Amino acid sequence: MTKLKWGMIGGGEGSQIGPAHRLGAQADGLFEFVAGALDHRPEAGRDYARRLGIADDRAYGDWREMLEGERGRDDRVDLVTVATPNATHFEITKAFLEAGFHVLCEKPMTMSVEEGEEIVRVARASGKILAVNYAYSAYPMVREARAMVRAGEIGKVRLVVTNFSHGHHGDATDADNPRVRWRYDPAMAGVSGQFADCGIHALHMASFICDDEVRSLSADFASTIPSRELEDDAMVNFRMEGGTVGRLWTSSVAIGRQHGFDIQVFGETGGLRWASEQPNQLYYTPVGGRTQIIEKGEAGLSDEAARLSRVPIAHPEGFPLAVANIYVDLADAIRGATRDGLPGAEDGLRSMAAVHTAVASARAGGAWMDARPPMFRT
Amino acid sequence: MTKLKWGMIGGGEGSQIGPAHRLGAQADGLFEFVAGALDHRPEAGRDYARRLGIADDRAYGDWREMLEGERGRDDRVDLVTVATPNATHFEITKAFLEAGFHVLCEKPMTMSVEEGEEIVRVARASGKILAVNYAYSAYPMVREARAMVRAGEIGKVRLVVTNFSHGHHGDATDADNPRVRWRYDPAMAGVSGQFADCGIHALHMASFICDDEVRSLSADFASTIPSRELEDDAMVNFRMEGGTVGRLWTSSVAIGRQHGFDIQVFGETGGLRWASEQPNQLYYTPVGGRTQIIEKGEAGLSDEAARLSRVPIAHPEGFPLAVANIYVDLADAIRGATRDGLPGAEDGLRSMAAVHTAVASARAGGAWMDARPPMFRT
Amino acid sequence: MTKLKWGMIGGGEGSQIGPAHRLGAQADGLFEFVAGALDHRPEAGRDYARRLGIADDRAYGDWREMLEGERGRDDRVDLVTVATPNATHFEITKAFLEAGFHVLCEKPMTMSVEEGEEIVRVARASGKILAVNYAYSAYPMVREARAMVRAGEIGKVRLVVTNFSHGHHGDATDADNPRVRWRYDPAMAGVSGQFADCGIHALHMASFICDDEVRSLSADFASTIPSRELEDDAMVNFRMEGGTVGRLWTSSVAIGRQHGFDIQVFGETGGLRWASEQPNQLYYTPVGGRTQIIEKGEAGLSDEAARLSRVPIAHPEGFPLAVANIYVDLADAIRGATRDGLPGAEDGLRSMAAVHTAVASARAGGAWMDARPPMFRT
Amino acid sequence: MTKLKWGMIGGGEGSQIGPAHRLGAQADGLFEFVAGALDHRPEAGRDYARRLGIADDRAYGDWREMLEGERGRDDRVDLVTVATPNATHFEITKAFLEAGFHVLCEKPMTMSVEEGEEIVRVARASGKILAVNYAYSAYPMVREARAMVRAGEIGKVRLVVTNFSHGHHGDATDADNPRVRWRYDPAMAGVSGQFADCGIHALHMASFICDDEVRSLSADFASTIPSRELEDDAMVNFRMEGGTVGRLWTSSVAIGRQHGFDIQVFGETGGLRWASEQPNQLYYTPVGGRTQIIEKGEAGLSDEAARLSRVPIAHPEGFPLAVANIYVDLADAIRGATRDGLPGAEDGLRSMAAVHTAVASARAGGAWMDARPPMFRT
Repeated sequence: MTKLKWGMIGGGEGSQIGPAHRLGAQADGLFEFVAGALDHRPEAGRDYARRLGIADDRAYGDWREMLEGERGRDDRVDLVTVATPNATHFEITKAFLEAGFHVLCEKPMTMSVEEGEEIVRVARASGKILAVNYAYSAYPMVREARAMVRAGEIGKVRLVVTNFSHGHHGDATDADNPRVRWRYDPAMAGVSGQFADCGIHALHMASFICDDEVRSLSADFASTIPSRELEDDAMVNFRMEGGTVGRLWTSSVAIGRQHGFDIQVFGETGGLRWASEQPNQLYYTPVGGRTQIIEKGEAGLSDEAARLSRVPIAHPEGFPLAVANIYVDLADAIRGATRDGLPGAEDGLRSMAAVHTAVASARAGGAWMDARPPMFRT
Repeated sequence: MTKLKWGMIGGGEGSQIGPAHRLGAQADGLFEFVAGALDHRPEAGRDYARRLGIADDRAYGDWREMLEGERGRDDRVDLVTVATPNATHFEITKAFLEAGFHVLCEKPMTMSVEEGEEIVRVARASGKILAVNYAYSAYPMVREARAMVRAGEIGKVRLVVTNFSHGHHGDATDADNPRVRWRYDPAMAGVSGQFADCGIHALHMASFICDDEVRSLSADFASTIPSRELEDDAMVNFRMEGGTVGRLWTSSVAIGRQHGFDIQVFGETGGLRWASEQPNQLYYTPVGGRTQIIEKGEAGLSDEAARLSRVPIAHPEGFPLAVANIYVDLADAIRGATRDGLPGAEDGLRSMAAVHTAVASARAGGAWMDARPPMFRT
Repeated sequence: MTKLKWGMIGGGEGSQIGPAHRLGAQADGLFEFVAGALDHRPEAGRDYARRLGIADDRAYGDWREMLEGERGRDDRVDLVTVATPNATHFEITKAFLEAGFHVLCEKPMTMSVEEGEEIVRVARASGKILAVNYAYSAYPMVREARAMVRAGEIGKVRLVVTNFSHGHHGDATDADNPRVRWRYDPAMAGVSGQFADCGIHALHMASFICDDEVRSLSADFASTIPSRELEDDAMVNFRMEGGTVGRLWTSSVAIGRQHGFDIQVFGETGGLRWASEQPNQLYYTPVGGRTQIIEKGEAGLSDEAARLSRVPIAHPEGFPLAVANIYVDLADAIRGATRDGLPGAEDGLRSMAAVHTAVASARAGGAWMDARPPMFRT
Repeated sequence: MTKLKWGMIGGGEGSQIGPAHRLGAQADGLFEFVAGALDHRPEAGRDYARRLGIADDRAYGDWREMLEGERGRDDRVDLVTVATPNATHFEITKAFLEAGFHVLCEKPMTMSVEEGEEIVRVARASGKILAVNYAYSAYPMVREARAMVRAGEIGKVRLVVTNFSHGHHGDATDADNPRVRWRYDPAMAGVSGQFADCGIHALHMASFICDDEVRSLSADFASTIPSRELEDDAMVNFRMEGGTVGRLWTSSVAIGRQHGFDIQVFGETGGLRWASEQPNQLYYTPVGGRTQIIEKGEAGLSDEAARLSRVPIAHPEGFPLAVANIYVDLADAIRGATRDGLPGAEDGLRSMAAVHTAVASARAGGAWMDARPPMFRT
């Protein structure tokens, strides 16, 4: 099977996200890295691309140059990953979709709901794949959880409780560090801090596993470090279309939590529990029964869980391979397979609608508000 | 040291709470069990009391008979435990306080805020001890957590997050079982179901460890089993007097959680984490540092933690001995020591105010409301 | 039901073991503490006994005085607990048995195999109960494990692996502390250090859960702190009568392990795992299936597990109540019930035989040796 | 930086080990997969190689053909991975080393001690790198443990305790399954079953972290499923050159253990604990202090830990990336860097000596024997 051709925008030298995508795209031998516009400084980007083995003529200085360079080639890239600063995702993603490329966009897909709706329209019109990198949803045991919910193994879902809380921004003496500060500055981060950064991963996962969408929400935001304009701690209560009650806590000042992203799903006939720090186990309790530990790689798992793990039971697989699983699904989808686990434009749009609704609700003292994008309120 | 004399009202044969109190009172040899009105059926209560070794003349038929019998004796009981149905706590507690007895009352102390304020006034006037059995607060490592907060070891507390969620009422096919049903029926349980049952333990613990009180709250209640009138799942956001942000989730439909009562406290310079299912460890993370496991019984703990444990490090002590610790503190307090860890009438009152405020807030779509008892709003 | 009468020898002021036994005997209201010879200093012992509420005439100066005092009384004690220094257990236990008292002896029951055999003979002849305080075996979930093995739920047991390792004697700078040093000095501790102190708890539990006895063993001893004459670390491989392979590691220099006593039992159709630091859960894996978490207090447990727990599921019960469970069984047995979970003279003897065999094997370079007491080699 | 050229022998379609190596070699973009002799069936191997993107002329039918084909090329492979059946490792590895290729050999490196000594000699003479795939030693937190030991952070190591026990061969009804059976058949597996399969990973890790070598050992082997000729459970006690006491348990019938590979290292001033199922945390306890949780990716780790992790703190990395770390070190070493964490020929030889010594000791009733390869007994 010939490798697909892949290019990246952003993810330059020293970024965290660049290596994760390169590993994700290449780990399984599915994509060949052939083009890139890796840095906002054209020469630095070209130089880094060359050092990563990109041919001279595909080591681009910026995304527009790359768009022009690639659109005319016979051997043009099959997939473009957009890993640039958040405010630029919309423009780049839109342009590449319109030029007929498949795109994987980092989250958040856009900064506004209106932009999100535009991407949905463009993606639909283009017939191309637009995926958003909600990579946690590609862990095998998260896929297993969704498969179990879909199969009715816990009955109708009554309640979903999810947290994404860490303490890495909890040091007030470090709050002015540029690495930290921008996230709480509306000029750079937009309307929301921690909820837009981590909360939407949790909200997406709630929708993903429950196979349902958020309809309304009520939010409480706090800036526990007073110099921050945007929230560093948030609680969002929500209701899903099917009636499921949701509770989501996210924080960046939870000192001692390292990567506290976990989810619990409670249905009429059972409960599920999963935590991102130990991603290879899923805890399942049938109503009236004992808690069981489901292991990645055990016999009898769903196809979604089985095809996305690489090594035998109890050999752990971690976050970089969850990112790789997004690329596995993308490669399959580009070749025509149905991969409905891939988060897409509609997911990216719903996240934006949730962010803006949560901000408004928090400002209105926790009032319940419709969290659906206008285009989905039918 | 002579044993103190102890009597109990309620806790008859087959009750869960009776054995816990008898064990708690007697385990350390501090109290002698000499009087009781153990059952709402006079003869059954007298008979059971006799079988437990109570002398004939102190095996009472009801609490009024016990009040009359004991008040006149030279060797009257030093302490009365009230473990009757919730709606009777107020009347019995008030009567014994007024007659000059020390009282340990099961939670909830009262059903209404007005009754709670009355107990506060009566307790103050009596000069007697009125304790409420928030027994979790007497675990050694919970006391250690409070001592650490008081000593400033995590700095000013920014955030407290606590859960008390289980799944033991999650089986809809069992929802009409009388053992379960009454908790969700306003005629028997009052205005609140799960929040009044378990949530107030968590709310008390938040106040206890943070050494602060709830000022306002916003609540979201749900009856996930539709036949229930009262809530079986609740989320309460709150603010404390000192500005601390609070988040409290409580549920009885969280299938797979057995006794999911835990608390996390995040301050300016550190975080703490404790869970009731593994009560002998406290997790502490200084800002910028590694998580440390503090063990019950290790050298150098606070006096509050040290004096309330009985066996060496890593020999677990469980819930019955947390109840016993309430009795240890009561024995000390009766003999004149200062035991400010003992939950008292004001704590019982604040719980009631929180319950009624949460109910009102949930009905008002999560509106923020003052959660303080009227008598404390100065 | 009238309380039984109980006396204790040893366990004086400041001892760790005294409070554990007093709590154990009194927690459930089954025994009344009426007599004691609590200290090797007669006046100190009498004084302490009085302060604990013992009548003057039963506050004895030494065990012989107590034996004389009690044997003639109509209301003599039903049960005597022997919690004196190890080397005196044999003499005291023997004397009280011969005088017709039931006895609970702390471990080790004796210092030599010959003494152990003598106790077995005396106990058999007396018709009285002689129990040895292997209290861990009285945890509800340990009883459940034994019940499951007996019921064939894991099939024939192939393998048992148990550890009892801590690090509390791992500080060489503290090795000369008298509290620590005596355990490694043959003049005080006898032939073995850590194996005799902790290892025999693990070996007893292996026999207890597997419902089988050790037949032969091979040992490797080490004194990792060179100034120690006796071992502070030991590995013992063994074979049981039914062919089960056994592995036992015990250490007192395992810095970071607090109370690392755990056991794993592997049979033809399943495996079990239990750890003393989280004693309320038992992990069970059927062959080819998922690991299940069995909770103390869940529905459907064996009678042995159910009758020895006091509070509902997931309310932890700890070590002091395991000791109390020994007293529950003793009270029942004294009243005539069959309580075959009570460790007895034969268990105490087998422990001694194992200790002496392990010492000999370690000296002989790990040679396999018959570990049975001579009187059981038929 | 140009990619290095890589080829593989073995690891054909359907094998578990092939994908792990391909992912390991390619994940970080360090190696280009250009040649292979992937199957013992020449045509199947050529065909699979082509499907994986290997050019026709480097899709070889067997290893000899590959050796001939590659040795004459200017662009010959820089590294050959040998992932063929165990009995062939020696011959192939030797041939490629002699032809001047760097080699990564799967474990066991050889079947006999004599072969192992030959590989050591050949590797030394060749000046080429011979690495053995003890991949667990390349987990970042294992490297951190070794760095801590080397830096003296736990003082002189007294004791190391390691287990590698699973239950995946515990089903007697599946024991004749060819996938399982060959491991216990001397005709296919050689002199040892479970110890040679898993035990040597644990023994290597003990040496690796302690930075010391095994000098002598005593073994106890058991075939708990009687139809097995070779052991499915083994206990090995050992002593290291520096005096460290070692204990190693390995089992394949430990039903309920999934991948129970863990290690504890106890020194004069501290203890360390690591488990392969949660590989991103290392537990460290200073003597007299509290246990601390060291997280992969935290600030201040050793260079060995820091350079081998890819994603931020608490984003787990798993087994495939530990394999990739072996390739990271190989790429560095091929380019001239010193990478003394790479397991080499001497490690492979020592494993073989330990296997044969353990077999002999077990047959001799656990007699202590010199476990060093003859060539290292100086």
